[in-house]
Amino acid sequence: MTILLKIAYDGTDYAGWQRQENALAIQQCLEDALSALLKQEIKLTGASRTDAGVHALGQMAAFSVECLAIPVEKLPQVINGYLPKDIIVLTARVVEDGFNPRFRAKSKTYRYQMHREANPLLSRYSVLIPSAVNIEEMEKAAACFEGTHDFTAFCASGSSAKTFTRTIYSCKIEQDGQKLCMIVSGDAFLYNMVRIMAGTILYAGKGKLEEEIPAIIASKDRSKAGKTMPPEGLCLAEVRYEEEL
Amino acid sequence: MTILLKIAYDGTDYAGWQRQENALAIQQCLEDALSALLKQEIKLTGASRTDAGVHALGQMAAFSVECLAIPVEKLPQVINGYLPKDIIVLTARVVEDGFNPRFRAKSKTYRYQMHREANPLLSRYSVLIPSAVNIEEMEKAAACFEGTHDFTAFCASGSSAKTFTRTIYSCKIEQDGQKLCMIVSGDAFLYNMVRIMAGTILYAGKGKLEEEIPAIIASKDRSKAGKTMPPEGLCLAEVRYEEEL
Repeated sequence: MTILLKIAYDGTDYAGWQRQENALAIQQCLEDALSALLKQEIKLTGASRTDAGVHALGQMAAFSVECLAIPVEKLPQVINGYLPKDIIVLTARVVEDGFNPRFRAKSKTYRYQMHREANPLLSRYSVLIPSAVNIEEMEKAAACFEGTHDFTAFCASGSSAKTFTRTIYSCKIEQDGQKLCMIVSGDAFLYNMVRIMAGTILYAGKGKLEEEIPAIIASKDRSKAGKTMPPEGLCLAEVRYEEEL
Repeated sequence: MTILLKIAYDGTDYAGWQRQENALAIQQCLEDALSALLKQEIKLTGASRTDAGVHALGQMAAFSVECLAIPVEKLPQVINGYLPKDIIVLTARVVEDGFNPRFRAKSKTYRYQMHREANPLLSRYSVLIPSAVNIEEMEKAAACFEGTHDFTAFCASGSSAKTFTRTIYSCKIEQDGQKLCMIVSGDAFLYNMVRIMAGTILYAGKGKLEEEIPAIIASKDRSKAGKTMPPEGLCLAEVRYEEEL
């Protein structure tokens, strides 16, 4: 049987989702906890390989076992006792055998959180930006990302992607007092794409963009887009699958 | 001259506001930074002695110097370079000589943050409570604290207070999705008073109160009130002084 987990984590102290040789990853913590609980080696497949320092409220990951000794709905509560407190399994359910949470995802939503006034209670999950940014310009820039485009200009080097065309269903700026959030949903994302989009939108807000977003997209030139924003502002909010799941 | 600072901090890694022998306090970090910058020993007087693990967005503290080598409005930016990133000086201004930010305070506002669904991105600054709490009962309980009362039943042992009568100007519950916040303003607070109030309001929300709040206040019996809630949910939000300041 295959079990699909919904997972939330504070990524501050981890080397990202993916298991690594010399650093502690979220995947390893979960695999170790599940292996200890289920007394067999468990391998997880995640929906998104979040980078070091990136957070999640809706990461999805699946594993297969012959049988589960406890009811699947009890699994979150039990496994959370084996996990550090910055990683929480929120839900668990049985899905079809061999279900791959990455390839089966219909959409992913990321939030990039920023704030405009120094605040030590926000800086773990949000990035300080200048208070004078033009929010209307940021909203206009965000809207330019919506649709199907070749996002080569918004992909960091080192990507193993074969195609660079992705569809952005929605890209909005949400304002709440001194807090600003870019919320972006799409079918899939390239390496560092959300952080480069946020950096480009911030350039727009600062009046620093030398070309309009559509021209930057068309250029396929990474050097024309904004900086890659720091990881702590990024959170994987939600992964969606077909309704019938 | 006397300088009044407004300070924000993440209290997680500190032994509270007040300087201690064997543990690192916020006051010590600030005094060390100011002493290094101003090349003389600086002593700070704080408005509130927040406990270990308690946060602040509006702590106030004052110090006296013969003269300041830099313009007072530049002080925050400069001193923040000497401070760890979880302590931030927000503003600085000259006040009357010998101004005591504790005794001159007209009101203090604290926020006690709770959440009803496990979330690792909230747990550093908020406390997980059962999702089934009755919010209307919590609102009713909160309102009972308003007014001038003898708060002996809401004071932890070890207090050096001479009188136990305090005036609560306002005590409200604010709901935002899965987040609940008790916001309380008063003229002054006893040792652990806000955390015991929050614990008592939570008991009301769980239907666990054996007596009504007015009866608990009248009893002056600490054992009748709720538990002292953990420090991480508490934040000193604001200290107010007379307008003319």
